[in-house]
Amino acid sequence: MTEPIRDTSKLCVHTITTKPWSIEEAIDNYAQAGIGGITVWRQWLEGRNPIHVGKHIRESGLTAVSLCRGGFFPASAQSERQQAIDDNLRAVDEAAALGAPLIVLVCGASPDVPLPEARKHIQAGIEAVLPYAGANKVKLAIEPLHPMYADSRSAINTLKQANDLCAAINSPALGVAVDVYHLWWDPNLEQEIKRCGASGRLDAFHICDWLTPTTDMLNDRGLMGEGCIPIRQIRGWVEAAGFTGFNEVEIFSNHHWAADQHDFLNKIIHAYLNNS
Amino acid sequence: MTEPIRDTSKLCVHTITTKPWSIEEAIDNYAQAGIGGITVWRQWLEGRNPIHVGKHIRESGLTAVSLCRGGFFPASAQSERQQAIDDNLRAVDEAAALGAPLIVLVCGASPDVPLPEARKHIQAGIEAVLPYAGANKVKLAIEPLHPMYADSRSAINTLKQANDLCAAINSPALGVAVDVYHLWWDPNLEQEIKRCGASGRLDAFHICDWLTPTTDMLNDRGLMGEGCIPIRQIRGWVEAAGFTGFNEVEIFSNHHWAADQHDFLNKIIHAYLNNS
Repeated sequence: MTEPIRDTSKLCVHTITTKPWSIEEAIDNYAQAGIGGITVWRQWLEGRNPIHVGKHIRESGLTAVSLCRGGFFPASAQSERQQAIDDNLRAVDEAAALGAPLIVLVCGASPDVPLPEARKHIQAGIEAVLPYAGANKVKLAIEPLHPMYADSRSAINTLKQANDLCAAINSPALGVAVDVYHLWWDPNLEQEIKRCGASGRLDAFHICDWLTPTTDMLNDRGLMGEGCIPIRQIRGWVEAAGFTGFNEVEIFSNHHWAADQHDFLNKIIHAYLNNS
Repeated sequence: MTEPIRDTSKLCVHTITTKPWSIEEAIDNYAQAGIGGITVWRQWLEGRNPIHVGKHIRESGLTAVSLCRGGFFPASAQSERQQAIDDNLRAVDEAAALGAPLIVLVCGASPDVPLPEARKHIQAGIEAVLPYAGANKVKLAIEPLHPMYADSRSAINTLKQANDLCAAINSPALGVAVDVYHLWWDPNLEQEIKRCGASGRLDAFHICDWLTPTTDMLNDRGLMGEGCIPIRQIRGWVEAAGFTGFNEVEIFSNHHWAADQHDFLNKIIHAYLNNS
């Protein structure tokens, strides 16, 4: 049985989890709560200098764990695919300025692009960005998304697909983000987590919970313990595969966003220590 | 390229697709529209004698393609699991009385039952029902459901899992129902359809479409052509695997149910002939 978590030093919170807070509020409140890390969503950098934000993060005692999100490569038009690549190059600049070692990729999908073609666009997009990422000491992490997002958010929907794509591209600057929300249902999950760890590509671990019923396909994720995902078991698999990084709480929730965010942050910490 | 469909002789409609209609209205309206088959949902038999319904179906020139739905085997309590088995035995009686050769299984899942355990419940439940089904010349068909239903509707979420389960149980009375809505995203779909056909277990083919955005996880399916599923391509795979049965239109849609059902049936036929 996986050991319980004893403290919040490896807890990382995504800025989107506490959506009502600005980047400054998030940094100050996470630090005050004793949280160890922050993953910054790009929207939170709008109108900010990422160098200053990175400095604020470090001076607050937090670690900048990753930048969310790159990707969104597939599109019918070549010009749109090039725009996506250009945007990912800018994301590399932002991550480097912020001091975040990793960009999480939501690879993209479109109802107008057949999945096999979308997967080619994704591979081509990643390959176009990787040299610049590597040169800037920023890794890219493919995050396989739940199959319910295969129409519009990601054509990479299982950890096996992500592992296969990493193996095909075979770059030291490319890895994988494992998110329990997207992958918990997969009967091959334990096996593919082992494979991911053995290849040295397991670079991020995201947690939250799956609610029954789920009332919104995007913004009805639960706090750890509110749903049916065996989070601790999956954390055990990830740790057995050699992962020693942060446990990142990434919750999109209209319900929790409507609450007092200080109360919500307390609940996150409680759920992290007891149900993760 | 898969040949277009030329007529409605192999079109089957599920009674739930035209939810506002009673079983009698569905039979009469499908027959009048020249549709070849009907799949009866069990709720439509409430207060009816299934022998009489079966007679009405045959006398209208329709084929009773299958009975929906058996399954729902997993539960924490043994007594509940036995109730599910008993209910499936009653479904066999109903299918036999109706003259339907197949029962589609929504295998079941529960947020209170870990997936590996739920899968054992499913196998045990199917094995408990199979002898009675076989003796009554009724086949059971495992329908793998989309992973977004893994919490509460089915712990069997890919065609590979369904094929593996069929291979493990290995009964001539057990097969598989392939539904494009649940499986279209799967990169192994073509390969597993081949495997399913080669094993002689490909017993049903369900069609509809995936809408972007999908606004309801259960009741926002689209008409063929309204979404992003490559239906004709998948039909080609199914036919190449030896399937010669009905193409069953199974659409749950608050939007379409609110419309005039005669108009909707005309749209189904148009979409069937042009986008399937």
